[in-house]
Amino acid sequence: MSEFELIAKYFIRPGKNVDLGVGDDGALVRVSNDVQLVISTDMSVAGTHFFAETSPYFVGWKSMAVNVSDMAAMGAQPKWATLAIALPEVDDAWLAEFSRGFFACADTFGVELIGGDTTRGPLNISITIMGEVPTDQALCRHGAQPQDEIWVSGRLGAAAFALAKLQHPKQFYYVDESELKELLPALHQPIPRLNLGLALRGIASSAIDISDGLLADLSHILQRSNVSARLIWENIPSVRLAGDHMYLNDLQQKALAGGDDYELCFTAPAHQHQTILNLSSILQLPISCIGHILQKDELSQSQCKVFMRDGTEIKLSHTGFNHF
Amino acid sequence: MSEFELIAKYFIRPGKNVDLGVGDDGALVRVSNDVQLVISTDMSVAGTHFFAETSPYFVGWKSMAVNVSDMAAMGAQPKWATLAIALPEVDDAWLAEFSRGFFACADTFGVELIGGDTTRGPLNISITIMGEVPTDQALCRHGAQPQDEIWVSGRLGAAAFALAKLQHPKQFYYVDESELKELLPALHQPIPRLNLGLALRGIASSAIDISDGLLADLSHILQRSNVSARLIWENIPSVRLAGDHMYLNDLQQKALAGGDDYELCFTAPAHQHQTILNLSSILQLPISCIGHILQKDELSQSQCKVFMRDGTEIKLSHTGFNHF
Repeated sequence: MSEFELIAKYFIRPGKNVDLGVGDDGALVRVSNDVQLVISTDMSVAGTHFFAETSPYFVGWKSMAVNVSDMAAMGAQPKWATLAIALPEVDDAWLAEFSRGFFACADTFGVELIGGDTTRGPLNISITIMGEVPTDQALCRHGAQPQDEIWVSGRLGAAAFALAKLQHPKQFYYVDESELKELLPALHQPIPRLNLGLALRGIASSAIDISDGLLADLSHILQRSNVSARLIWENIPSVRLAGDHMYLNDLQQKALAGGDDYELCFTAPAHQHQTILNLSSILQLPISCIGHILQKDELSQSQCKVFMRDGTEIKLSHTGFNHF
Repeated sequence: MSEFELIAKYFIRPGKNVDLGVGDDGALVRVSNDVQLVISTDMSVAGTHFFAETSPYFVGWKSMAVNVSDMAAMGAQPKWATLAIALPEVDDAWLAEFSRGFFACADTFGVELIGGDTTRGPLNISITIMGEVPTDQALCRHGAQPQDEIWVSGRLGAAAFALAKLQHPKQFYYVDESELKELLPALHQPIPRLNLGLALRGIASSAIDISDGLLADLSHILQRSNVSARLIWENIPSVRLAGDHMYLNDLQQKALAGGDDYELCFTAPAHQHQTILNLSSILQLPISCIGHILQKDELSQSQCKVFMRDGTEIKLSHTGFNHF
């Protein structure tokens, strides 16, 4: 199959919000009035972001989902995406499943594929997503203020436990096969919190999606906003596993620094507390208040500290996924 | 160096036409009124698109230049780009030179880097470029009409000869070292024809940039426009080398199907002939009329035929670069 046949077979579909889609030197779209265009890009590499043997349906879903998650974190409505993909060889079955997962996610969140590139090379998927947000309503990392509450959606650590069990089955013996089965969708088919991100316009003072781990991603908000934070462990919604007396350290590690959660972490003034709880109820999504923003100089050394309710500070062996 | 230090060191620069640049979940830009947004993406892989040992300055320049070339082919003013890059390891010297070449090209053509992703993996550079074109003035592939003239900018085949000499020095013995030195810039540091693309708005009926070879890329115009074409070899501006009696077959192969030229091929109604020659003079760039568009049924079998002036048809062993 030539590059062009391949593109036509798997990636050309009729467009809706597009003036000119896949198949020219560039795509043409019209951006709405009174919005800012929001652009984000994520690259997924076999062996770094997913196992080469992962079901291509999930690779397709997740590579799009992590981009949608960036739009959610900006409070932006995703609209268009480009897909550049390097493949070691043309594998019809792999591509059929990949594109099925890719479009399943794109269709769920209203994203249209408008262009791309295919080439030979080690498996690599690079997606750029574009969305719209009403001017000056984007959720950014730099808006957190002292006294703001810190919130997180969903439950943290499921994807990290699934990955750990797959990689080190003996070390994580206490995660049994039925639990693994329940954890795997978090790893393979994350659901970006787009509805939440859109609803947080005008409510949240800052937001980020959790891809590298809660503490690592929250630290970006803290650095950008020039503030510190204090979290309470018992308020942080972690994944539920049997036998929790055995694995508290693991649980803390995975929930605080595991990564791949694709939940939203955001800050908001305290007067928004009830509004956010109402949102949680409307969206049928747990949203938990996990701590507070502090002046930068209220905590020495570290910008973010996590305490047990009894006052003990939690220290982690490492605090987040580093891509290098 | 962590991912974030790496981004900060090499890729964060103050923005001009950007509301929020590198460093959040997404970038924020404002698109002008009465334009279409033009989006294109190109992935460059070590071993497929460039030698792993190629000077990183040239890798940086070229990976941006091929994207600018897509904007030129659309008649679009490039404005913003994202860069996703996978690296086997953090190599400070490589990144310093790569970013120097990348920004040299970006600055030359007015492109701002607004976002990106860095990760570990086999060397892969994926760029998405965004530009603007006044609504309905984009140069597309589907507008060629019978009787239109076919034009090409610059001289074709230089990059292909340089690559051939590097890969098979004995086969291309007649390209001497001083000639190779003159050919290499075409391979390593192509100059996208942006001024020409912008000037062709309202003049050209279709356009494409030549990345896979003249015949392969022209064939996309022909398919999209549902027409055929007849070219005259002697009118096609090929690179000049010494000893041309020895290598006519090679020259035809490289000029017609070599690829990596990044010249523009376009069609225009005959009444624009003098306007285009004037453009050539203003831009100090050769622009050559190389043939005509025909009704689809005027040529049987092939959509594009190339003839010598004496009527002999030229047949090539292969007609363009296939990415698989």
